[in-house]
Amino acid sequence: MAQVAQATIGNSEFDRDTAVTLRDPGVPGVYDAELSAGWTIITAVNGGYLLALLGRALGDALPHSDPFTVSAHYLSPSEPGPAVIRTETIRAGRTLSTGQASLVQYAADGTEVERIRVLATYGDLDALPDDVRTTALPPAIPAYRDCLGPSDGPAPAIPGSSAITERLNIRLDPATVGWVVGMPSGKGEMRGWFGLADGRDADPLSLLLTVDALPPTSFELGLKGWTPTVELTTHIRCRPAPGPLRVSITTRNLAGGFLEEDAEVWDSADRLVAQSRQLAKAPLSHG
Amino acid sequence: MAQVAQATIGNSEFDRDTAVTLRDPGVPGVYDAELSAGWTIITAVNGGYLLALLGRALGDALPHSDPFTVSAHYLSPSEPGPAVIRTETIRAGRTLSTGQASLVQYAADGTEVERIRVLATYGDLDALPDDVRTTALPPAIPAYRDCLGPSDGPAPAIPGSSAITERLNIRLDPATVGWVVGMPSGKGEMRGWFGLADGRDADPLSLLLTVDALPPTSFELGLKGWTPTVELTTHIRCRPAPGPLRVSITTRNLAGGFLEEDAEVWDSADRLVAQSRQLAKAPLSHG
Repeated sequence: MAQVAQATIGNSEFDRDTAVTLRDPGVPGVYDAELSAGWTIITAVNGGYLLALLGRALGDALPHSDPFTVSAHYLSPSEPGPAVIRTETIRAGRTLSTGQASLVQYAADGTEVERIRVLATYGDLDALPDDVRTTALPPAIPAYRDCLGPSDGPAPAIPGSSAITERLNIRLDPATVGWVVGMPSGKGEMRGWFGLADGRDADPLSLLLTVDALPPTSFELGLKGWTPTVELTTHIRCRPAPGPLRVSITTRNLAGGFLEEDAEVWDSADRLVAQSRQLAKAPLSHG
Repeated sequence: MAQVAQATIGNSEFDRDTAVTLRDPGVPGVYDAELSAGWTIITAVNGGYLLALLGRALGDALPHSDPFTVSAHYLSPSEPGPAVIRTETIRAGRTLSTGQASLVQYAADGTEVERIRVLATYGDLDALPDDVRTTALPPAIPAYRDCLGPSDGPAPAIPGSSAITERLNIRLDPATVGWVVGMPSGKGEMRGWFGLADGRDADPLSLLLTVDALPPTSFELGLKGWTPTVELTTHIRCRPAPGPLRVSITTRNLAGGFLEEDAEVWDSADRLVAQSRQLAKAPLSHG
């Protein structure tokens, strides 16, 4: 997709494709959604995109609008097309509220199939004090111009179509792209710059997409194929500043057929804006 | 509490205090429990102990018995006394099943108050392949005899009673006990050896306690007071070997009034048996 005029928060492809509609004004908490085919990776809808959809529904249903911590358990692969999101307000406090959301789709025979269930605690990021006592340092990623995007080399060896790559502007650290040419580093690391292709800046909702948008670390561990997420928890720590984000993903423990992926997202103001961890099933085939 | 004859898995204080009883054989998934006053820290019931209770109920309700990943959102402080745990089986698959559990207590006027809600995916740890490609290394903790327990120095400056300390055998790395004598290191680190006081060995359920049992890293950051957990997700990666565990907790980002605590638990066979991360509210008072 060619770069178009800069999109804005609220008026972008991401916002249109994560829109949810209250089904019945008299029945709070139930939303209709349409899973866009534009955010598929191979044939499945990307888990981070789904999380943003659920996050938007919860932000509408709960008294607070910003996700602070979102825990998702993935139940079955989602498909492009209609979906229903049911939310429940569990607790509405003064500074924090907690809710639950479930995304379901329908099989050809009308059977309801649950895709993902989420527990989330929301708050108001703008109401937090300014204190920062972090010891975390931004990841050592080369400058944007020295990282590699789709036009800089051979096409990534992902079989099938990956429509999501057209909607993202990801430039990977050259140290973590060996898998593209069949020479994975053997380290469980994936790093790069992240933006939306239409130039929309990041907000807490889009960070839910960002934490699950880079290629899996398993590619650099020499494993090929699908790395399905079992569980993914994301903490949004502050509202991101405009500009490109840096994402660093690390896997330290691949064992027993499972691996964890720890993601950090840093904004242009050098602030750690999101931390996430997922447990995923390791691919079965070795490269 | 004096050391007694070695307790075993299934026959120990921890097992008795985390027992749950199916309320009605005709109604699956609803359990009665009694929150023991023996696992309180200051006046609140410890969050890891609660997690083990919920984990035991889910292990009974789901077709698989071992917690793989458990995500808990804490809603209100629990009190010793009766509680009800309601579970729901969300998905029962061949190798993994996912459930939800909610622990509620009752106010004096009979009002139901929800304390904690959990999403969890269970499986069979013994059915996992033996492959280990971890790059994680055990934490550098001094030998057991060189770490410090309650009898080795001044009493920890935790106000109020902390009954849980009598049930745990924790020996802290001397590098992370400066807070006890008013000289915190300033680093967000807490490390030590962990066991149950009655000698019961670890299992996947007790690991849910272990990840939230050490003093908070905020003490070493010079902050005093309660660090309430907002969300805690634990991944159990393999069944722990008998013998003492090593626990390492790290905080890298204290900002906006919140901090994350990343815990790793290693067993006597040098395997990474559990990884957890929690988001907690930072204490308001500085040391």
